[in-house]
Parts: sequence; structure tokens; C-alpha cells
Amino acid sequence: MTHEVLYLSQDDVKATGLTMAKIIEAVEKGFVEMGNGRVEMPPKPGIHPGEGGDNFIHAMPAYIPAMNSAGVKWVSGYPVNQKKGLPYIMGLLIFNDPETGMAKAVMDCVWITAMRTGAASAVSAKYLARPESSTIGILACGVQGHTNLEAMSVLFPLKKVLAFDPNAENAENLANFGRSTLGLDVEIVKDPKQAVTGCDIVVTSGPILKKPHETIQAGWVDEGTFVSCVDFDSFFSRDALNEADKWTTDNIGQYNHYKDGMGYFQSCPEVYAELGELVTGRKKGRETATEKNFAANLGLAMEDMAVAPLIYDLAVEKKIGTRLPL
Amino acid sequence: MTHEVLYLSQDDVKATGLTMAKIIEAVEKGFVEMGNGRVEMPPKPGIHPGEGGDNFIHAMPAYIPAMNSAGVKWVSGYPVNQKKGLPYIMGLLIFNDPETGMAKAVMDCVWITAMRTGAASAVSAKYLARPESSTIGILACGVQGHTNLEAMSVLFPLKKVLAFDPNAENAENLANFGRSTLGLDVEIVKDPKQAVTGCDIVVTSGPILKKPHETIQAGWVDEGTFVSCVDFDSFFSRDALNEADKWTTDNIGQYNHYKDGMGYFQSCPEVYAELGELVTGRKKGRETATEKNFAANLGLAMEDMAVAPLIYDLAVEKKIGTRLPL
Repeated sequence: MTHEVLYLSQDDVKATGLTMAKIIEAVEKGFVEMGNGRVEMPPKPGIHPGEGGDNFIHAMPAYIPAMNSAGVKWVSGYPVNQKKGLPYIMGLLIFNDPETGMAKAVMDCVWITAMRTGAASAVSAKYLARPESSTIGILACGVQGHTNLEAMSVLFPLKKVLAFDPNAENAENLANFGRSTLGLDVEIVKDPKQAVTGCDIVVTSGPILKKPHETIQAGWVDEGTFVSCVDFDSFFSRDALNEADKWTTDNIGQYNHYKDGMGYFQSCPEVYAELGELVTGRKKGRETATEKNFAANLGLAMEDMAVAPLIYDLAVEKKIGTRLPL
Repeated sequence: MTHEVLYLSQDDVKATGLTMAKIIEAVEKGFVEMGNGRVEMPPKPGIHPGEGGDNFIHAMPAYIPAMNSAGVKWVSGYPVNQKKGLPYIMGLLIFNDPETGMAKAVMDCVWITAMRTGAASAVSAKYLARPESSTIGILACGVQGHTNLEAMSVLFPLKKVLAFDPNAENAENLANFGRSTLGLDVEIVKDPKQAVTGCDIVVTSGPILKKPHETIQAGWVDEGTFVSCVDFDSFFSRDALNEADKWTTDNIGQYNHYKDGMGYFQSCPEVYAELGELVTGRKKGRETATEKNFAANLGLAMEDMAVAPLIYDLAVEKKIGTRLPL
């Protein structure tokens, strides 16, 4: 008896038509499972080929019984690739049948990674931002700028986008996407402060740096704002960060590993809650209209494995992908 | 620009025609690299779907710069599968370009796992068995019985095989393989002692058990014998194990994890050396004709990644496999 595995290229994955709304819903459900201690997600080990130690390939395994989802994402990040005209992030995800261990699918993980990262920001925002938030600042307008904007537009009545990027082309791309695809009013700003002060939601989505550039200063973030630090603490001065009323993350264990083991998040506020505690009500989200709330989510294998079954089911239903013998 | 990944099914992997001799050579070279501290191999994390906790899916990443090899094996072991007519071990291996992080191939890992495990036993035997070893006992004649016998036949002037298995069909299969494929004299024995006493090399390749069945008693293993404990310490009474002059393993860190973290290898001898120390001459292998030497190799991601580039190169050369867009 020959068993088959379904291969989905990046184009195949996109062609499933899975929406950001469905991804947000799945990621939130995953955080509920995680908050209730029902996700198996070991630490992510990695290898670091090449000179300098900046390249990585990480194995990210997770098992979510309630979603009948098990698998691993094997994802690389090579800063040197951009000079070669190759993507920074590349990788594959293997999706397994938890009943037998057999691989059901191998799929490109780049689109999934971009989308679920935006979705996780939106889930944090659901609990930490003001529901009427309508003005959003995006600082650095690359892939994560796009998916974070899209995700926030699903959950909030966004009207106005302030887009900052030192690279004008990136800013233009985001402006076009915001206007054409999301129907938003987008203004490109030259001064990063304009994408922070006056915003209900701020997303920082630049490169992740061990030594933060600390562009955002104390006093820039308004009362009542929610900030998603997709690039960790890279964008913020320590004084600005310490204005946070609630400093949160997606996983305390992983946060402490990045902080104590790897040197990120130095002199940051104490973590108030992890996202699983917010979505299960174990810790309160926003309590007043004036809190300054932050999320520094790190990206979890759970999020990938929450999305993988949706991609798989749609691909099977729409007969997308290549069936291969195992 | 569309990038491609090469998919190799289990039949494709076998069709490359990679020989056991080449696999042993590659695995030994991998142990030289490891012994010299030039392999990156983080701990293998896993998930454990299903009831009872006996099922696993492990991520096994490794990077071997000297072989230009990086990747991960994602391999499942489901004891319950045999009742369903499915293999115990299944999985895929992703082989990456260390220069860019891009996946070059996705290949079935079942054949590779079986072959490299036999090869690792043979590398241990090269340093720990008598070179003139001609009689071999195989206790439990499943997949590992076959590949261990084949691997030993590459390095030693084998003539006689004593095959023991409680399951008569397994024993017959091994006998046929030994006679037809390897040209050896194979005798099926009913008493496990007959596959131990009088043998130059003994391979135990039954199921791995936390509570050893301790079939092999003190006094059964002759002076001068080498034993490869593919099933850990499952086959041996503690007294029999403690007759070992040199008790070795493939990786001390992983051995200690199995011993102290998981409860295997209780009351076993102190580890004398890991295999990388033997192949690099940091520790001496066999020193006298009368030593009883043991290897309890655990199986390493390094071994898989030592074999993967050979499979890939042969597949490209012979135009085997399916090219897919990333």
C-alpha cells in the first residue's frame, strides 16, 4: 500500500485563499489551548551555518490535540540572502497525522509565517487595544508591516494609516496595499514620531536587533495606545518602553530564553502576562482607556500548527498541490 | 525566479543505489568531524501525540560544514502502528543548502535511518571488534538485524551467522537475506544463548524497552567479542553488561539525557568513550584480543546529515525524483 503526501508550494498555499480572518481565529484558538496547558511545544533548536552566526535554521515542532494538528516548521533566516536577491526567511512545514505520525503534507512556510505573525499581533490587540482604535502607525513597511496592517484591519475599524520607512519603496508598497486592498487612508510620513504620536495602535516591524536603535522616545506613545513590537524591543528607547502599563509576550519561556540566554530585551519592563493568559481570562487585558499596552510576541510553532490544518483542508477541498508517494 | 526542491520518495532514495560501504564511510567521516568538534547538533526535541506517551515525532537537526550538509530529520515512532499495518518508523528529511538556507531536497528518511544505524554499529565495530571477526550473532531479525548484518559484512570477513528471533518469519527473512544477498552461512537458532556464545560479534536489535528483558546472562559473551546494543540495554542482565571492558556510545550528551532524563541505561557501566573519540584516536579502541567491548549507539542527526548529500548527489546525477517549485 502506497501512502501519499501532499506538496504545497508557496503559490499553492496562497491559492487556498485562506483569509486573515480565519487565521486570526485559528491563532486565537491556539492561544486558548496553550493558555489551558493543552499544547505540546518543546524549545526550538537550531543550526547556524555560515560565518558570523547571524544565519539560523530553526526546528519548530508543536502538537495541538484540539486541532488534530502535529508537525514541525523548519525555517531559515539568512540576513546575507538579501544581497543575493534571495528571501531572508525561507522554509518548509511538515504537517503530520497525530494518529499515525505519517506526514500528510509538506508546505512552504513563508506565507504562513508572515500571516500568522500578523494574526498574533491582532490577537494581542484584541485584548490590549481600545476596540474603537481607528488610527494605526506602521514603522517599517516590509512583509510584517503588510500582514500586521491587514490583521489589525480585520479586528478594528481602521481608517487612517501613518506609514514610516527609511526605504521609500517599502513605504509606497504599503501605501498601495493599504489603499487598494484594504481601502484605508494611508499617509507616508518622514518623521517616525508622526507614526507614533496620535495613533491608537502602533506596529514596529523593522529588523530585529540585539542592540536596539531606540528611535522611539519617551512621551511619543499616547495614553490609550497599544503597541505591537514585532521587532522585539529594537525601536524603543528604554525610557519609552518603561512607560508601558502592561508589557506582554506570547510565551514567557521563550521570552526568557531570548532575554537571559541571547541578550535581547535588556532593561525591558517585567512581563505582565503571556497571551494565553489573556485569551483565557487568567489575566486581565486592557482595564482603562488610558493604559499604554505593549505586546512583544516572538512567534511560536503553535501558531504555525494552528494554521496548517486550515491550509491542508482547503488544498484537499480545492484539489490544490501535488500528490507524491511517501 | 522560481526555486526548486527535489522530492525523493522511499523508492527514489533506494533507487539511487547508494551502497552500505559508502554509507559507512560517510558516517565514519561524520564521527571524525564530531570528534573534532566541528558538527552543530542541538538536542532533539519532540512531540508525543496519542495516548500512553509511547508515540514520538522527533526533530533532528544537524550541520556538518565539512560535508556542506545541513538539515533536519523529522521522524516518528509509533508502537501502535504495527497493529494498523503501518510502519513503526516513518518520516521525512529536509536537506538544505548551508549557503542560503534554502531547501534543496525533501526525502523519505526510513531507508536512510535503517542504513545509517547499521553503519554506525559497523564504525563502532571497526574500532572495538577483532578485525578477523567471522561469526556473528543477530538477536531479533527485523529491519535493524538486516542492516546491521549488511554493515558488518562490509567491514569484516563474516562467514557464519547465528540468527535468533522469537518470530520465525523474521528469522527466515534474515536467513534468506544473509544467504542470497550477502552469501553467508546462516543458522536459525531457538536458544538466544546460541547467538551469543561463540560469536565474535553480537548485535541485539529488538525493541527498545525502559525495563530491559535481560535475556542475555553473565558468562554468555565470550572474551574478545564486540557487542552492538542497537536496542540499548534491553537484551542484557546487569551482570552480563558489567562484564564489559569498554562500554561506549555515539554521543555522551544524548546518552546522559536517555539515562538521567528518561530512565534508560540504569545500572549500566560507566561510558568509556564516545565514538568520535575512538575514530579520532583521542581514546583507544580495542587494545587486547580478550576484551569484551560494547557499543550502545543512540542514533544521531549527524549520521542522517552525513548520508543525505550522497543521496542527493546520486539522485541529481541519475535524474531520480520529482522537482517541485518552492
